[in-house]
Amino acid sequence: MVDVGDKPITNREAVARGEITMSRAAISAIRRRAVAKGDPLQAARLAAVMAAKQTATLIPLCHPLPLTHVGVELAPTSRGYRIEARVRTSAQTGVEMEALVAVAVAALTIYDMVKAVDKTMVIGDICLVDKRGGRSGHYTRSP
Amino acid sequence: MVDVGDKPITNREAVARGEITMSRAAISAIRRRAVAKGDPLQAARLAAVMAAKQTATLIPLCHPLPLTHVGVELAPTSRGYRIEARVRTSAQTGVEMEALVAVAVAALTIYDMVKAVDKTMVIGDICLVDKRGGRSGHYTRSP
Amino acid sequence: MVDVGDKPITNREAVARGEITMSRAAISAIRRRAVAKGDPLQAARLAAVMAAKQTATLIPLCHPLPLTHVGVELAPTSRGYRIEARVRTSAQTGVEMEALVAVAVAALTIYDMVKAVDKTMVIGDICLVDKRGGRSGHYTRSP
Amino acid sequence: MVDVGDKPITNREAVARGEITMSRAAISAIRRRAVAKGDPLQAARLAAVMAAKQTATLIPLCHPLPLTHVGVELAPTSRGYRIEARVRTSAQTGVEMEALVAVAVAALTIYDMVKAVDKTMVIGDICLVDKRGGRSGHYTRSP
Amino acid sequence: MVDVGDKPITNREAVARGEITMSRAAISAIRRRAVAKGDPLQAARLAAVMAAKQTATLIPLCHPLPLTHVGVELAPTSRGYRIEARVRTSAQTGVEMEALVAVAVAALTIYDMVKAVDKTMVIGDICLVDKRGGRSGHYTRSP
Amino acid sequence: MVDVGDKPITNREAVARGEITMSRAAISAIRRRAVAKGDPLQAARLAAVMAAKQTATLIPLCHPLPLTHVGVELAPTSRGYRIEARVRTSAQTGVEMEALVAVAVAALTIYDMVKAVDKTMVIGDICLVDKRGGRSGHYTRSP
Repeated sequence: MVDVGDKPITNREAVARGEITMSRAAISAIRRRAVAKGDPLQAARLAAVMAAKQTATLIPLCHPLPLTHVGVELAPTSRGYRIEARVRTSAQTGVEMEALVAVAVAALTIYDMVKAVDKTMVIGDICLVDKRGGRSGHYTRSP
Repeated sequence: MVDVGDKPITNREAVARGEITMSRAAISAIRRRAVAKGDPLQAARLAAVMAAKQTATLIPLCHPLPLTHVGVELAPTSRGYRIEARVRTSAQTGVEMEALVAVAVAALTIYDMVKAVDKTMVIGDICLVDKRGGRSGHYTRSP
Repeated sequence: MVDVGDKPITNREAVARGEITMSRAAISAIRRRAVAKGDPLQAARLAAVMAAKQTATLIPLCHPLPLTHVGVELAPTSRGYRIEARVRTSAQTGVEMEALVAVAVAALTIYDMVKAVDKTMVIGDICLVDKRGGRSGHYTRSP
Repeated sequence: MVDVGDKPITNREAVARGEITMSRAAISAIRRRAVAKGDPLQAARLAAVMAAKQTATLIPLCHPLPLTHVGVELAPTSRGYRIEARVRTSAQTGVEMEALVAVAVAALTIYDMVKAVDKTMVIGDICLVDKRGGRSGHYTRSP
Repeated sequence: MVDVGDKPITNREAVARGEITMSRAAISAIRRRAVAKGDPLQAARLAAVMAAKQTATLIPLCHPLPLTHVGVELAPTSRGYRIEARVRTSAQTGVEMEALVAVAVAALTIYDMVKAVDKTMVIGDICLVDKRGGRSGHYTRSP
Repeated sequence: MVDVGDKPITNREAVARGEITMSRAAISAIRRRAVAKGDPLQAARLAAVMAAKQTATLIPLCHPLPLTHVGVELAPTSRGYRIEARVRTSAQTGVEMEALVAVAVAALTIYDMVKAVDKTMVIGDICLVDKRGGRSGHYTRSP
């Protein structure tokens, strides 16, 4: 988690989510901490935070933005993991791309660390869940 | 497309795919070339190639690899676009992560350029389709 | 083009230009859309915007700046293309380096995509055209 | 040195230091300007400034910050060089990591340029010397 | 750990080490997993691997190298943590800088995550321990 | 200068050049070492080497290449400085883009460091001078 200590002047926030589905063997390997390369969930969280900060380098027309918070959560599901990223900025521009990039890179990092066990994993359902602040008002994805 | 002119010594190849689904208005805006920020498909292809080259920067435990080819194709579907990326290397390591990163970043770039028209777009079904070369043999996703 | 939607508080603006001269065969290949690697002008525009955002990484003593706008235009001339980049920021520092970097990288990208047709291309006349905002006042290049 | 011309609104400042110790032959090679790769002190200063700007890329949970000043000084000692970096920002977050990164990269750059002469060099005593501005008040390292 | 599966053709290896010393409170916070930002040791290992891959971007005259292995170990000491990094390459150039960068960035990452508890931490004793392969033969630091 | 110590297996070489023209006051400031930001020529050389290594990040369809040598020379002329960059690789792909990028970034770095003295500087005549190795044979620019 990245968080500014002082004066949390946050103009905008965006929440994105996605999921990675995998075989039982892959889920089991993660839960038993039996993945040879290390803990995929820890690596995914860090990679997601670092990627959110690189969004403007990855997405051609995105602005470089000063982020005040990047939080990434990974929740187990029956088929794999659900990923949620929440990003805040004090700037005048939305941060939905930062949140979506964080989700995608978290999923890709899990894929990379678990691919020796399961090559059939699927990354999906990446979407914007919530966005507030800014001219276009509050957006919440209908369930 | 990135392609080495001489001596195409390619040890490994990987193909990944994914899709982005969107509203009719968004599909129409892309096809009518009415997206204010420019042509999302051109931008997506270039961003995907550039991201594939940055895979080792994004995914913590990925190796930096000399790629000999990165090809990205975007095909219209009834619900949006299907993305396919094909990556080749002359190195001793697989390139499935490069192909998956290319697909994810192509989809995220389309999202970024079209989000003023449609915030409900969903990126999904990102998976490895084919991988050949290397110790683990030929993998093809069953249909 | 990169443009902030809300509150366009722009303190500084800089415009730079340059040109790339090439053989008739090269000009013709671009105009007939016969360049094997893709559309050099589209690629040049995107590469220029991305490079402007990386100026502080390239030029040792440049500051990282939040850009509010990067626009790149390519106009055909009798000998090749003229490139113009316009950059704006809300920050307290000038953006002439960002504009000059954008022009240089646009030209280099065209060179890369067309070099199979013409190795004799020359990139030249890169200069600052206009700069406004900030302590040093308004600068316009005399014609 | 990186310095903003206008309105030096600096909220935070941090000073870090460190040292690199080396053999007499290595010290002599630097002072006689006999290092084959060029002047290690000049290279170290530039590399340190550039690295300070990349702190958020290197350190996973660091924020990207707009720096208003990065100054790096190298002073000869009897055993090598003492390095001091001073970083300022107009942002709401401390810049001690930027100063520490600058010191570390300056030392590593000297190591790289002089390693053909001396492989036994040691980089040490990297610490925060002074930090002011922000919620946590003024910190000065006791001597 | 980053490791190539096939054909481990490793021409060169380098081992570097260093340490970070800290207050008892800081050591205790790490061991009790009470650091607010997450597990500093996990973050340090990942950051070190990622930084090793970026060595040529940080150190001006370093070559970009294809690394075949980066391993980072953190061992508790009575005063903090000892860090050791081992890097291998199949290339014709030594990898001591990659190993030294990994050690420095591991230490800096621990500093960043623990600095809310202890600002007096010192990073030191960063040196090359062992280097083999290549023209200059086997180097081992005398104890 | 970046140079591999062992086994200089160089398949390809490219030489590019360019120039920056400036006012007498600017030339004099550089020669008298009176530029406030430091020595522009030293900074330009280092920035050029670092940029050559980043060519694949800047130019969308360029391959990442292992460079075995980057040399940058700056020669005073009556109107400013002439820049020449020589790049070698052991890879199967040409390095003319690396050489051209090095020249452009050297010129831009000089511009950045001297712009307080002279805003009218012009960067020009950037072209490929010589290219050898590879399928397309030896190319030398006719004088």
